[in-house]
Amino acid sequence: MEIIEAIKSRRSVREFTAEDVSDGEIAQILEAGRWAPSGLNNQAWRFIIVRDKDTKKALSGFTHYGKTILDSAVGIVVFLDRESMYDYTKDVQSIGACIQNMLLAIHSMGLGAVWLGEILKNREKVNQLLGAPESCELMAVIAAGKPVEKPRSSSRKELAELTFREKFGNKW
Amino acid sequence: MEIIEAIKSRRSVREFTAEDVSDGEIAQILEAGRWAPSGLNNQAWRFIIVRDKDTKKALSGFTHYGKTILDSAVGIVVFLDRESMYDYTKDVQSIGACIQNMLLAIHSMGLGAVWLGEILKNREKVNQLLGAPESCELMAVIAAGKPVEKPRSSSRKELAELTFREKFGNKW
Repeated sequence: MEIIEAIKSRRSVREFTAEDVSDGEIAQILEAGRWAPSGLNNQAWRFIIVRDKDTKKALSGFTHYGKTILDSAVGIVVFLDRESMYDYTKDVQSIGACIQNMLLAIHSMGLGAVWLGEILKNREKVNQLLGAPESCELMAVIAAGKPVEKPRSSSRKELAELTFREKFGNKW
Repeated sequence: MEIIEAIKSRRSVREFTAEDVSDGEIAQILEAGRWAPSGLNNQAWRFIIVRDKDTKKALSGFTHYGKTILDSAVGIVVFLDRESMYDYTKDVQSIGACIQNMLLAIHSMGLGAVWLGEILKNREKVNQLLGAPESCELMAVIAAGKPVEKPRSSSRKELAELTFREKFGNKW
């Protein structure tokens, strides 16, 4: 799938079929994630792959969007390893780049996913459940699987609302 | 260009030819950026496009990597609009996703770019130069242009160093 097409046609997918996602597919997704850029190439992202039903059930209790986790084939739990950190803002940006790579890969593979952030309110509980040390700060859960086919629309602000030429205020 | 190939073959480009980048190309790059996902779809990214030589010269004084900015055809200065913010960590992640979309678009268009973060040490000076209000927090400068052709290598940690199965410690 072409880059620009993939970027523009990707949608959050919250409804999944019962179909599984293979280890090979998960490795491809992670491969896209690990090739993200990071400051000083510090690669402070860490992943826990959750496929176990009981673990998914427990995770689902930590967010309003629990049904999505329950119905997904796999949860990719993304952490920032604070021991590899050099600058919080830049490292968090690189985690976002890593997540976006994975979302694009997922979409290009005919799979679907949603980026869950609301679960961060229960980051300590997630760490405890998964045995992750305090040095791993929960960044997101990506719930992925084979999407139920249905139309999904989204919208974005116009470029002119976001962009200036040379100086702030001088609209694009 | 295919997604996975683009993700894996993209490199930081710091040497540019004198060739220009058109407004149309810049719009394509920004188009990729604005289609990034963000929490509550708040789209807190803002862009100032710098092509003016004097502005690039002034910007270049704010970072050790000034030569790259000077030699680039365009600087895309990326801000977080704190007035549109809802959660710093999640918003900064989404800015990272937006930047990654732009880097992938740039690469797929046969252009090159580098994501500059070191300039954040002079964020107040950048804001002042570009007339950006305090509510716009500098996130990065992307210096882009037509790349000088040369081999560029990079490396990443192995998946097994980054990934666990079900629980922290249980290596992939």
